Amino acid sequence: MAQPPVIILVRPQLGQNIGKAARAMLNFGLTEMRLVAPRDGWPNPDAGPAASGADAVLEQAQVFATTAEAVADCSLVFASTVRRRDLVVPVVGPEEMAGQIHRCEGRSAMLFGPERSGLETADVALATSIVTVPINPEFGSLNLAQAVILLAYEWSRGAQLSQPTAKEIEPPATMGELEGLIGQLDVALDERGYYHPPSRIEATKATLRTILTKPKWSSREVQAMRGVVRALAEPPRPKG
Amino acid sequence: MAQPPVIILVRPQLGQNIGKAARAMLNFGLTEMRLVAPRDGWPNPDAGPAASGADAVLEQAQVFATTAEAVADCSLVFASTVRRRDLVVPVVGPEEMAGQIHRCEGRSAMLFGPERSGLETADVALATSIVTVPINPEFGSLNLAQAVILLAYEWSRGAQLSQPTAKEIEPPATMGELEGLIGQLDVALDERGYYHPPSRIEATKATLRTILTKPKWSSREVQAMRGVVRALAEPPRPKG
Repeated sequence: MAQPPVIILVRPQLGQNIGKAARAMLNFGLTEMRLVAPRDGWPNPDAGPAASGADAVLEQAQVFATTAEAVADCSLVFASTVRRRDLVVPVVGPEEMAGQIHRCEGRSAMLFGPERSGLETADVALATSIVTVPINPEFGSLNLAQAVILLAYEWSRGAQLSQPTAKEIEPPATMGELEGLIGQLDVALDERGYYHPPSRIEATKATLRTILTKPKWSSREVQAMRGVVRALAEPPRPKG
Repeated sequence: MAQPPVIILVRPQLGQNIGKAARAMLNFGLTEMRLVAPRDGWPNPDAGPAASGADAVLEQAQVFATTAEAVADCSLVFASTVRRRDLVVPVVGPEEMAGQIHRCEGRSAMLFGPERSGLETADVALATSIVTVPINPEFGSLNLAQAVILLAYEWSRGAQLSQPTAKEIEPPATMGELEGLIGQLDVALDERGYYHPPSRIEATKATLRTILTKPKWSSREVQAMRGVVRALAEPPRPKG
């Protein structure tokens, strides 16, 4: 059985909602919460009462400064958000997400954005997929704890059923390993004036990140790609 | 397609929770709410603000004096509660419930009890089945709106009100386009003595091909990668 997913709240605003999310998680057996730059710091006195007894989840919550650090050890990251036109990240439904998590050899995570604004493009770009709950197209109004509980529920449905089948031949690389490749490529491209014009730098970097995240390469494959980038960045050898 | 189920709140206490239940319902396309003897009467000024825009559900809500009257026109009634030792009512999970509702020719309903105490024996006895969400046996703490949203979601999964998901936004590149990238990379790597020792050339090329085939990149993404390879193969520009 794969490990249960980590629930990552990105820049959550109200302590109360962090508590509600913890309660939602524990109902379905999820215990590992991570917080990225919670607005009002951590711990937050409003979280405990709203957790209705899920205090253990809050006590063990880990705090990170950036989303990239929070997902660094995860090989499968689902961004809970609506479909994004600005990013070519695959979009899956909750059931497909749950299946992928159950088959994942490494750590998996679900990312949730701040209460009102949701995840930013830079956060979503760190995900391997977007997960969207199919809701009423004329009335979509899920709050943070509800989004958490629906995806936690969907995960738990399969947790009883899933046998350890369909095993990946190699575990996927961690996001940290992938960051290494992206950083290396970034430096080499920058030295060659690839990021041009300046107004397009952000978009170009986001596109490259998506292209390199999409394959779900294994550690070995990421290492091989790092070797390729290193070799390409060298000057050609004289023939003969 | 069978009619969507009616959501019946039995003796709900806080107006706020009635509003939250309406919001939960409308997310998954359920619009028919019935209230049995709401503690603080009806309409309740606290309901609207909590509904976050699902006012139409509240405006059309019907009030009944007893649970028996509220379910009178329904042929399938699911009582949302834990298993009851005092009653011989069949117990089903959310998925089985949704299937029965989708196959039901007549009206169907889900019954939810008051916030703290839950449904009484007399209410459950009016149901054709008990529906129980399988939750963490060591921490079961679903509030009213969460119970509503999970069962509404489960109903909607089968209702196909959902948009197509898991669909790739862009079609994958042709094999011809991919060969172009592989060939370009091959030449650049060869110039830099990457394929070494000679005995490993075949295996190394096969590995690279696998790495580049795995992502199922789109045409646009393959073009972007060709630009990356071209840029990397150029000498670095002098700084400044």
